[in-house]
Amino acid sequence: MSVQHISYEPGVLRILDQTQLPAATVFVELRRALDVSAAIAQMKVRGAPAIGITAAYGLAIEAHELSRSGLDNQEFLARLKQAGSSLIAVRPTAVNLAWAVNRLLNLAEMLLAAGISQPSLAEALDAEARKIHEDDVAACRRMGELGAALLAELTSTYARSTPNQSGIRILTHCNTGNLATGGYGTALGIVRSLWSARTLAHVYVDETRPLLQGARLTAWELQTDGIPFTLISDNMAAHFMQRRMVDAVIVGADRIARNGDVANKIGTYALGLAAKAHELPFIVAAPLSTFDIKMPNGAGILIEERNPGEVTIFGGTRTAPAGAPAANPAFDVTPAEYVTAIVTELGVVRPPLQAGIDALFASTTLSKSVRQ
Amino acid sequence: MSVQHISYEPGVLRILDQTQLPAATVFVELRRALDVSAAIAQMKVRGAPAIGITAAYGLAIEAHELSRSGLDNQEFLARLKQAGSSLIAVRPTAVNLAWAVNRLLNLAEMLLAAGISQPSLAEALDAEARKIHEDDVAACRRMGELGAALLAELTSTYARSTPNQSGIRILTHCNTGNLATGGYGTALGIVRSLWSARTLAHVYVDETRPLLQGARLTAWELQTDGIPFTLISDNMAAHFMQRRMVDAVIVGADRIARNGDVANKIGTYALGLAAKAHELPFIVAAPLSTFDIKMPNGAGILIEERNPGEVTIFGGTRTAPAGAPAANPAFDVTPAEYVTAIVTELGVVRPPLQAGIDALFASTTLSKSVRQ
Repeated sequence: MSVQHISYEPGVLRILDQTQLPAATVFVELRRALDVSAAIAQMKVRGAPAIGITAAYGLAIEAHELSRSGLDNQEFLARLKQAGSSLIAVRPTAVNLAWAVNRLLNLAEMLLAAGISQPSLAEALDAEARKIHEDDVAACRRMGELGAALLAELTSTYARSTPNQSGIRILTHCNTGNLATGGYGTALGIVRSLWSARTLAHVYVDETRPLLQGARLTAWELQTDGIPFTLISDNMAAHFMQRRMVDAVIVGADRIARNGDVANKIGTYALGLAAKAHELPFIVAAPLSTFDIKMPNGAGILIEERNPGEVTIFGGTRTAPAGAPAANPAFDVTPAEYVTAIVTELGVVRPPLQAGIDALFASTTLSKSVRQ
Repeated sequence: MSVQHISYEPGVLRILDQTQLPAATVFVELRRALDVSAAIAQMKVRGAPAIGITAAYGLAIEAHELSRSGLDNQEFLARLKQAGSSLIAVRPTAVNLAWAVNRLLNLAEMLLAAGISQPSLAEALDAEARKIHEDDVAACRRMGELGAALLAELTSTYARSTPNQSGIRILTHCNTGNLATGGYGTALGIVRSLWSARTLAHVYVDETRPLLQGARLTAWELQTDGIPFTLISDNMAAHFMQRRMVDAVIVGADRIARNGDVANKIGTYALGLAAKAHELPFIVAAPLSTFDIKMPNGAGILIEERNPGEVTIFGGTRTAPAGAPAANPAFDVTPAEYVTAIVTELGVVRPPLQAGIDALFASTTLSKSVRQ
């Protein structure tokens, strides 16, 4: 049903150019790590898990290229690390990017030390990138199940505004669906699972200025799947909560600090404030790859500042007078106190979040592979 | 310095077409009440005080036209009232429109009963409309003075985040300036007064989706006046408050209920929530003509629902897939508990707001002419 927006064969990465949606469905082929960096920078592919997957494939492509250059192993590794650093620098907020790149670089270092040839190493990186991709899809499916069960529980716990209605009404922000992940989605994966379970009534979709990922991408995904939704501008969200037309807010994340502070698309924090004021559950859905447990809290998270032209010009039309200064922070930080629960592929973390996050990472040997 | 965006000579109203700003400065001449209704509906002129003034001129134009039609007085008055009802129906939320129209209709009825001729009556309506216009400019100037003094007091009372900075940092929403009023502005009038008094450091301007009155109009006014500002998307406002870059929020109003609930441009309520969470003053600036003291609270205020195409299409570019359903409530209601003070031309109302509003209307004989 959902489009395969990232696909790979050794040395060639094919992605759907999300900047052209919904007007056009255009795929681009990327054959150099540099092109992958550019595609991520231009947000042809975006969404924390999706850019992690894309960067992993990008690094595998680079390994293939370098393996044909007759470099010694030391130089090979140095150049591969350089490519990795370039990929990581492109979008500093989402930690999945660094997580995926470092996972491949660590593997490369181990394999070289073990005497593996450069071409075989490049193939091993292909396989590792594919595994990151497949694991992410599986993680999304699992978050969908866990999140749907959580929502059923929470919306019966919280006072439901209209108890006779035939399902849960979700408000979501940005795009956290198939297009933001390896497939299925994080927050939107939960929406899909609620819909499959016939417990979803409606979705309110924030358009998500300035780049309109909600209007362009989430609306497109929901329309494709036949899930009932209403598009709203971001500044309407609190109004619909006040009118008791929303039962819960579900968002994704770009980085979660150890204490549970959540960096996510700009506008998420305002939703956290509004959800709290209306005593609505505020749910964050994110795989373990989104956690940065070395970061004690959100204060240290670098917020990417993007081109002000994204705010002042839309679709070629100026929205502000020429020369008007604009700010364009791409993310904000929602403090842990506003988060009702975080849904991960290994379970639901509830307050106190730091204890839950620590337990999650301690409970699994995955923590070693995730955070070496 | 500021453009004269509404000007009138008997029978001809000239307005600046605000839908074309900032790309083009185009004036249109309106010679029939019907054209005035259409201009208000299309938001060629907008802003609660400005549409009250425009509607008053529109009704005067209608009186001139009717006075040349050879109607008896009863039919004349009936047709004039019909034109008034049509004007009021165009935009149901802002009460200034009904206030101005009813003020002229009451005058017309009195004058006809007193035996005044229809042509003389039309001239009297010209004069009354001009008085509404001039009074509004004077009210804005007075609100500017009162508001600037209030801000100086409040920002020294509230904890200032960076006490060494050289002025107050204001966040505002929509357009409440010269273009929204007879001249000078309500909330933006206070900004202008702070700037004149050299106590303003910076203005954060919400772009104000969907029609971008902040980006198109407020940015244009501030740029023209040389007042330093930064344009942001609406969903960034809470982030800048969290980063302690805002000292106070000032907004206008389209209707204020007797208890102090404030209907204003969609997105205002979210700002009220964010201001409260960050313990920042949330100031509403509105002339007495914006109060609807017969309305006990905000629950009864009709929220205008506008064309969803305003959300899904911008500047001819679709922002969402064809057929995507969208909601477009033009206003929301900020409960009185979120309002730190309301600045009017007769003084500043502080909590408890209802007592203050009652006192304001009791203290002045104006209350009789405002609410007959």
